[in-house]
Amino acid sequence: MTTLDELPIRDDLRGLSPYGAPQKHVRIALNVNENTHGIPEEVVDHVLAALGSAVRGMNRYPDREFTELREHLARYLSGPEGTIHPEQVWAANGSNEILQQILQAFGGPGRSVLGFPPTYSMHSILAAGTGTRWIAAERDAAYEISVPTAVAAVEAHRPDLVFLCAPNNPTGTPLTIDVIEAVYDATDGIVVVDEAYAEFMPDDAPSALTLLPGRPRLIVSRTMSKAFAFAGARLGYLAADPVIADALRLVRLPYHLSALTQAAAIAALQCAPQMLAMVDEIRGQRDRLIRDLPALGFTPLPSWSNFVLFGGVEDPHRTFEALLAEDILIRDVGIPHHLRVTAGTEEETTAFLEALGRIRA
Amino acid sequence: MTTLDELPIRDDLRGLSPYGAPQKHVRIALNVNENTHGIPEEVVDHVLAALGSAVRGMNRYPDREFTELREHLARYLSGPEGTIHPEQVWAANGSNEILQQILQAFGGPGRSVLGFPPTYSMHSILAAGTGTRWIAAERDAAYEISVPTAVAAVEAHRPDLVFLCAPNNPTGTPLTIDVIEAVYDATDGIVVVDEAYAEFMPDDAPSALTLLPGRPRLIVSRTMSKAFAFAGARLGYLAADPVIADALRLVRLPYHLSALTQAAAIAALQCAPQMLAMVDEIRGQRDRLIRDLPALGFTPLPSWSNFVLFGGVEDPHRTFEALLAEDILIRDVGIPHHLRVTAGTEEETTAFLEALGRIRA
Repeated sequence: MTTLDELPIRDDLRGLSPYGAPQKHVRIALNVNENTHGIPEEVVDHVLAALGSAVRGMNRYPDREFTELREHLARYLSGPEGTIHPEQVWAANGSNEILQQILQAFGGPGRSVLGFPPTYSMHSILAAGTGTRWIAAERDAAYEISVPTAVAAVEAHRPDLVFLCAPNNPTGTPLTIDVIEAVYDATDGIVVVDEAYAEFMPDDAPSALTLLPGRPRLIVSRTMSKAFAFAGARLGYLAADPVIADALRLVRLPYHLSALTQAAAIAALQCAPQMLAMVDEIRGQRDRLIRDLPALGFTPLPSWSNFVLFGGVEDPHRTFEALLAEDILIRDVGIPHHLRVTAGTEEETTAFLEALGRIRA
Repeated sequence: MTTLDELPIRDDLRGLSPYGAPQKHVRIALNVNENTHGIPEEVVDHVLAALGSAVRGMNRYPDREFTELREHLARYLSGPEGTIHPEQVWAANGSNEILQQILQAFGGPGRSVLGFPPTYSMHSILAAGTGTRWIAAERDAAYEISVPTAVAAVEAHRPDLVFLCAPNNPTGTPLTIDVIEAVYDATDGIVVVDEAYAEFMPDDAPSALTLLPGRPRLIVSRTMSKAFAFAGARLGYLAADPVIADALRLVRLPYHLSALTQAAAIAALQCAPQMLAMVDEIRGQRDRLIRDLPALGFTPLPSWSNFVLFGGVEDPHRTFEALLAEDILIRDVGIPHHLRVTAGTEEETTAFLEALGRIRA
């Protein structure tokens, strides 16, 4: 049998392991921040009707410009705080592909991207995969980033891109838009704000979308995988100045979004109120986790997302395995004495808290 | 309005235009080598049934290893000439993404890929997009590649990868497996055979799949976009030694294949006989084009694909536009005095030949 070592793979890939949380079949999966409430049956029907005509035309290539999908995404992002136009929107197979395209257009060999770990671990992996140098800057205490800390890092390293994650994953902690504004002013490079969990922020917390006017180097990325309950469809998108889409057209693979993806995402966006109906309930379970974990001896961090990172775990590996033995899967994100749990349904959250109480007892 | 020049895009992207054939709504589209016969209604029903359960579980991430899809692709590729095992198969969003992943794993900065233009134009674009140096080798007369020509190019340039296209696009010309064998023996690098049009080859012409045993550096890429009438689903795949999939796992984006893509492709593969029922008919129309074009004063090249490149076109741009005025879209691939046309249905081929006759008259 041939092994990887015998193949002429790139030297920087030798010895690496593939990225990915374990995919296990368990009763309660609270490990990858999905919306654990299912898809309402009326939405299933609407999506299937849309897929019907897509399948009938499947012998043809899809619309390379996904024009109708961009219109629906723009409408979804528009609100009292401002209007987003279809030409400001771009989409790809998951926000990972969005970020990869951004790095292909603005990063690559000889260029650098600055991030603030612990943060979404794909950021540095995508940097490596595109030959972009990854610069890890320090956070303040409790994983926060203040304006002076952020600006000092940008001025010290002068990166070509800055990746911010708001709210941050895997900590769940907020990043307020004054920091984003200050970072933008401190750099001539591209500033990417990964807002994968934006729908879980407090209703009165402004999104980085509100900063877009007059800032052509600012990109706000989003996903339908989290609040929108559509992880299986793999639809990430961004809003920015229309010139950003022009840049990404130079690096995107032609026809990168299938006709199925386009049709399903449009249909789901048409059902946005039903798809997002569970967001308040999920925020409630998140706040319940933060309220109840201290009584079990753990120290949860504040969260603006649909998950909670909690410290005070003596042996994360042992606690992870003990929960798994109870058919509950959460996530060990590699931060010492911490574990991360998704806010699921009320029943799932109850089962998790009870199991954790038993393990600790 | 901000322009691309004002953005910090990579220097090697400045001044480029996005890849892609014009997407126009016409009566007869013979420009991108689709299977212009529709999807049989019973296949539509079967695919939609499969999509139903995929949509119901859409709030969850898809199977990152697309295990069931790999089983179906392996079964499809297996035949009297040999068995392909699921662990030998890998898939992605179109064969473009397959080739991009191969270049990310084995190419990149400091590495080179050798190709033989005119060939599939995405090969050099993907090389540029991954920072891999593209080396263009010469073909023999009539776009053929003999064993000595291929081996001499490999020995002269010592590339890290060789891209072969069999049959070749945009010429349609065959590439026999003795050339592939000789190239493999002449290099220590990765040899990729792009067999996007393999199903249109003569029944007795062996695929490069038959060369896989004992050749761990050989990769055969395929697509469901052409013969399989599934361009809208964006499903490319490859067969190789299982170690190749291990290498690609290091560069693939996690969950790159949506649950929709996986379900639809599996369902379509279960209907392979119906989906491929039109291949003989399409080969018949291709042979008719080759037979009838000379009477109109054109010189078609031999073709093992579902399209024909023909020379003797005085002004390709004018002929292209004249056909477009008749609502017929074909492809100007940039080869002087040549145009390319897809073999469509009998009616479409008739309409094309009649229009071409009128234009010429």
